[in-house]
Formats: sequence, C-alpha cells, structure tokens
Amino acid sequence: MKNTNLICTRCQKLFPIDKIYHRCDICNEPLEVELVTKGKINKDTILKQTILERYADFFPFIKSIKNISLCEGFTPLVESPKLAFELKVKRIFFKNESQNPTWSFKDRGTLVGIQHALDSGCERIGTVSTGNMAVSMAAYGAKAGLPTFILINADIPPEKINPIAIYRPILIRVEGDYGRLYYRSLEIGRQHDICFINSDVPFRVEGSKTIAFEICEQMDFAVPDFVIVPTSSGGNIRGILKGFKEFKLCGLIKKMPKMIAAQAIGCSPIYNAFIKNEQKITRVENPDTIAHAIANPYPPSGNEVLRKIKEHDGIIAAVSDEEIIEAQKQLSMDGIFGQPAAAVSLATAAKLRQEGVIHEDDTVVCIITGSGLKSPGVLKKHLLKVHYCKLEGLNNFLEHGLKNVSKHL
Amino acid sequence: MKNTNLICTRCQKLFPIDKIYHRCDICNEPLEVELVTKGKINKDTILKQTILERYADFFPFIKSIKNISLCEGFTPLVESPKLAFELKVKRIFFKNESQNPTWSFKDRGTLVGIQHALDSGCERIGTVSTGNMAVSMAAYGAKAGLPTFILINADIPPEKINPIAIYRPILIRVEGDYGRLYYRSLEIGRQHDICFINSDVPFRVEGSKTIAFEICEQMDFAVPDFVIVPTSSGGNIRGILKGFKEFKLCGLIKKMPKMIAAQAIGCSPIYNAFIKNEQKITRVENPDTIAHAIANPYPPSGNEVLRKIKEHDGIIAAVSDEEIIEAQKQLSMDGIFGQPAAAVSLATAAKLRQEGVIHEDDTVVCIITGSGLKSPGVLKKHLLKVHYCKLEGLNNFLEHGLKNVSKHL
Repeated sequence: MKNTNLICTRCQKLFPIDKIYHRCDICNEPLEVELVTKGKINKDTILKQTILERYADFFPFIKSIKNISLCEGFTPLVESPKLAFELKVKRIFFKNESQNPTWSFKDRGTLVGIQHALDSGCERIGTVSTGNMAVSMAAYGAKAGLPTFILINADIPPEKINPIAIYRPILIRVEGDYGRLYYRSLEIGRQHDICFINSDVPFRVEGSKTIAFEICEQMDFAVPDFVIVPTSSGGNIRGILKGFKEFKLCGLIKKMPKMIAAQAIGCSPIYNAFIKNEQKITRVENPDTIAHAIANPYPPSGNEVLRKIKEHDGIIAAVSDEEIIEAQKQLSMDGIFGQPAAAVSLATAAKLRQEGVIHEDDTVVCIITGSGLKSPGVLKKHLLKVHYCKLEGLNNFLEHGLKNVSKHL
Repeated sequence: MKNTNLICTRCQKLFPIDKIYHRCDICNEPLEVELVTKGKINKDTILKQTILERYADFFPFIKSIKNISLCEGFTPLVESPKLAFELKVKRIFFKNESQNPTWSFKDRGTLVGIQHALDSGCERIGTVSTGNMAVSMAAYGAKAGLPTFILINADIPPEKINPIAIYRPILIRVEGDYGRLYYRSLEIGRQHDICFINSDVPFRVEGSKTIAFEICEQMDFAVPDFVIVPTSSGGNIRGILKGFKEFKLCGLIKKMPKMIAAQAIGCSPIYNAFIKNEQKITRVENPDTIAHAIANPYPPSGNEVLRKIKEHDGIIAAVSDEEIIEAQKQLSMDGIFGQPAAAVSLATAAKLRQEGVIHEDDTVVCIITGSGLKSPGVLKKHLLKVHYCKLEGLNNFLEHGLKNVSKHL
C-alpha cells in the first residue's frame, strides 16, 4: 500500500485512509481518495485479470487483493452508426454496464468498497438501497462470505425484493424517512462495526474510475467530446470524472471530455440548483419519474457534483419521462435494452443535440447504467406489437404479412 | 474465406457452406462445419476485439466481419473455493454466460448465425423460440437492421413476451404443435427467403465453440476434468465439445475434458435414451420442470448429442426440480444468480460427485447459461427472508438481531 489519504471534496481536510470515514467532520461533505498522478496500465490478458489488477497503479490504497471478484467491469463500448446518423453527431457509443455480474455499474464500486472494508479489518458490511446497489451488495457479500445488512424502504414490492433476497443477505425493511436512513446508517455502522458502503462513499467512487479507464483504452486514448452519466447520488459521475483526470495527470490522455450529469425532470435536485446557479442542492419533495434508479430526492454528493461540473466546464441536464421512454425504445432498436435510468443518457444526448449544445462533429459516450430486465413494469408504457396466426396459416400470413412489413421497414 | 464445407454429423455427406442448409437431406440429422485443424489465437486486447476477431482462424467460413456485434462472449470464469470445499472436489468454476448482451449464451451463436446469413446474401432472419434465443435474435436483428421473424408459442404469458417485443422484431404467436414449428420454419424459410437461425443450426454451434476457447485461455490451457452443460436442443454442448476438439487438433491443449450433458428429469429425452442405450431419442409427452429454458421435448440435435457423448466417453445426467432449486440457492449464495436451467449444471455436479462419478481430485467447470432475472417466477419456490423494523428502532433491532445472525453465520 502506497502513502495516500482521504481528502474532503470541499475543504481539503485530510483523513487517514485505513479507517472507515465517509464524510468530512467539518463540512459534512463527501471525502475522496487523493488523485493518482503517476501510473500505467497492466496490459495482461483481460480474460485472466480483474479491474483491480489491470489498473493496480490507480488503487494505491489496496493492501492485498482479496478473492472476492465476480469479474466485474471490462464492459463493451458499442458504437451506433445508426443513432449517430439519426442524431446528427459524428460518433455515438454506449458503455454497456448491464453486462456486469449483477447487471449494473454498481458492481465496480461494490468490489472496491468490500476490498477496502476487509483491508480495514471490518467484517460486516451493509448498504441503504432499494435497487441496483442492494442487489450488487447482496451478491458480493455472499461471495465474500460476510454478514451483509441491506436496509430497504418498507413499501418496496416483492418483485423488487426477491432479486435481492435470493443472495440471502440480512435484509431489513425499515419504516421511516428514507433520506434520513442514509445518514442514520453511517452512525449505526460505527456503533455496530458494520461498514456501510452507500452510494457515494469514497471507495465506490474509486470503482467508477475504471469506467473512464476502459473508455480510454477502447477509444485508443482519443477522448470523446462528451460523456453523459445518469446521475442520482452523484458517486458514479464523480468516479468517472476522477478516472479521466487521473489518466490525464499520468499522461495517458491529452484532454478531458466534457462531463454531463443527466437527471430525470421528475427528480432533478442537482439540475435545479445548476440552472439557478446555487451552491447547494435543495431536497425534491415529491419525486415522480419512471427512472426509479436515479430518483434520489436529496443526493449526498449533489453539492460536490455541482462543484466538480462547474470546475470542469461540464453540464447538468434533465429529461422528461416521455423522452426517457423514447430513448429506451431507440436504444433497444439498436440491440441494447437498458433500464429507464440508463436510457436517460441517450435522451440527454438527443436533447442537447437539438439545443445545439452537442454539435455534429462531436463524439459522445452514453453510460448505460443497468439492464432493462430490472424494470419490467415500464414495458407497459411501450406500444409493443405481437401478431397471431395458426400453424397451418403461417405460410399465408407471412405472404400477406411480408408486404405490410416491407412497408414499415 | 477458406475452403470448408458443411458435413452431416451422421453420414458425413458434404454440403456447400455458402448456402443455407440446416439438416442432411438423407438422414435428416444436423449438419456441422468441418473441423478446423490449424489455427492460433489472435492475442490483441479483448477490450477492442470481438470473439470473431480473437478466434478468426477458427471461423474460416466468414467472408468479411460485419458490424453487428454487441460485444458478446469474453465472459467470466469464476472459481468457487467455497463450493469446491462443500462438494469435496479439487476446484470448481462457473462460466457465467449471464454477462452477455442479452444475458444468455445464445448471443454467441446469434452473432455467428447472422454473420453467415449476411455472408450468404440473406436479408431476412428468424427463429423459433420462447426464451433466451428469441430475446437474443430480436436484439441482434435490431442491431443489424434486418427484418427479424420470431415465432413463439401462442400461450406464452406477457411477462415473457415483452422482453422480446421491446427490440421490435416481427413477433408472431403461432397456435399449434410447437415441436412441428421447428421443422415448418425451415420449409417456410426457404419459401420466403428467411434464414431461420434455430437452436442447433451449424452456425449457432460455431458460436458456442468460443465458450471452450475462452475456458482454455482462462485456465492457462490446463483442461478441466469435467465440463457440465445444461442441454436442451443440443446445439450448445455440440459447440463446446467441437471447440475443445479444434483446440486439441491445433495443439493448443493436450487432452479433451469429459463432457456432461445435463437435463432436467421432468424433460430428459436425451438422458432417457442414454440410460436405455438407445440410438435415437423419443419425444417426451408432458414436459414438466421449472427449468423451462431447457424443456425441449424432442431436441433436434438429440441423436447427435447421444452419438458425440458416446464417442468421447462423456456422460448424460438428469436432476430433479428440487435439486435445481437447491443448486440455484447455492449458486446465489456464492454471488451468481442463474436461471433454473443454468443451475442444472451445478445440481448435476453435486449429484455426480455423490454418486462417485466425479472424484475429489477433479476440476469441474459448470456452464451458467443465463441470468436469473429472466425467470422471476421461480423465486417463489425459495424460502426468502425479510426482516422489518421502524427507523427509530433500527439500533435496537440490530443489537438484538445481530445475536441471532451470529448464530446463523
């Protein structure tokens, strides 16, 4: 382990890295691991590496790599010439995080978070989540053989609970204000020696760095003009930005992409503060969007996302549920079925292209955060077509049907 | 394109590869691409390769690689020391195919199938399926921009239809005998110029070869003693066996693993023929198993699987629904949530270990064919536990609860 610290994202106060800290005791703002300024890629065969091994130089705080990987990361960057043509941009790519072990980007941060918990001598882990992160923590907690406390909202329906419960965590429905639960879990974690690896803890942010690292490798170190990240707590976009920054400091890339934090209009506290040019976010009282996975009404890294986006000349945008459904359709017609929150990145690309923020000679990367299989309910919002015929009538149907089909295609 | 042919798996009659053939006109048995006997691995960075590029020598029939990949394959091989200990085997690995673009192994064969259809000048594609293959074909058909005909059984429930329909294929519910539909689709394909890429067509088998190639690379070319494959139509196990065979012919590995075709007892036509030492399979009249994805009552490659398994000294086994549920539980408690059909491989490993077929010094690879998210209904069969408390009582609950939990763990 090299000599590195946690640093407050606002006041720069330093904290020792080998203890469990989440937020600054002065600002109550999130901490992060100090920037890596010297490092290279370990170019072994990915079939036999984990992200922690390939990018080992960028995880100086890791003592010894534990056998807890489910082989997260190394996800595809899929180009769509069809959507580049439709949107009138130079190139558009999708970083498909739905091909992770629990089918969302969360697995990267979960791996690093549990790795650090073990390095710090903590043997109980937990999280506050109702979606992707709960599933991810339950799976990795099982793999690591650690008691894993998952605190979820009391009114979550069974179809969302079962895919968490299958991994047999200690799953607790907690009745009460869900926003307060985030902070309460950190207190309780200290009392009961449970390391709560919540949405924006420093080591989750470290995990998300690898999304940026892989994009750089996949694009031959030619950085895209824009990277669009569906944003809820703020941990993921913080990590991706930090990843590009570290690769630039290490001389692996020459410039930074413009980062775009994308929210759903029905719950867009960071966007609201951005357009009003405020320093701090305000809680959204009645979140209302189909993009449940990013509907955090009071994101714990909201202020830090505001700071970082401004510092790096980025953008914060928001899109409507109609735009999200349309983007989910476009994306699936290109072979990728993302959950509504994932489609927010493409919806934002379309919107900012229309508004002239993104130009026709720009290259855009959209982060597809999780699988559409996780949100089956939303499929009712699509006009999906199914034909019907009898086996003996199939031939006739195809002759007749083919004519109609040709008209459509 | 090098000079290669299709060959009947039974009578060895040759067929030209650049036309659409599926079965031998003499035997009505499946065809396959002739074995590759000379080739090496193209060891570029996987982050920038497709399976067709990395293993190009093993796809001599491909004219020019089309831009239709969604970055399938290169899936993890995850070792489980915990389950090796429980099962009393030397090592056990899971080849996790749920991390493919549509979350099952089918994507490999779909890619190769559509690639060959395009090479052969066919511009309409189709399949007969109700599960993983329908989803995969719909996604890749969308990516390739081809009219894609998906023929499904008329009584499939909406929750299984929607994840296919989201990709907007030409989706047709066909009323009538589902087994007949497979053969009828091949006739209709010829009439209407639709290339039907069904379960065991030669190019789907070619796609499955890459599972074996990756296992070899991931195990440093030390071949496992057993490879267990959940088996329905028979296309996947044929491909994996062919992959090991080609690597052996090319001198990349020294021996073949023992292949185990694993079925569900509620629908096990190949196993039934195997134990009765019959040459041909008999149709199962009333399939009844929770492993729907492998419940083919009259698998089109059934006879060929019997031939190949006998020729290579392999095994055909079958497990009960109870054993499948137990294996799905064990697997998820190790961080991998597979669909019931996927858990059949682990259930079979446990059974054959108990029966003394697999020994304590053996290394076993189980193929995890698809994601548990595809079969949410089966979660009702698990005894899943959820606790409940109020936010203000959380501290007390954890103090009290932790004691209980410690007892369990």
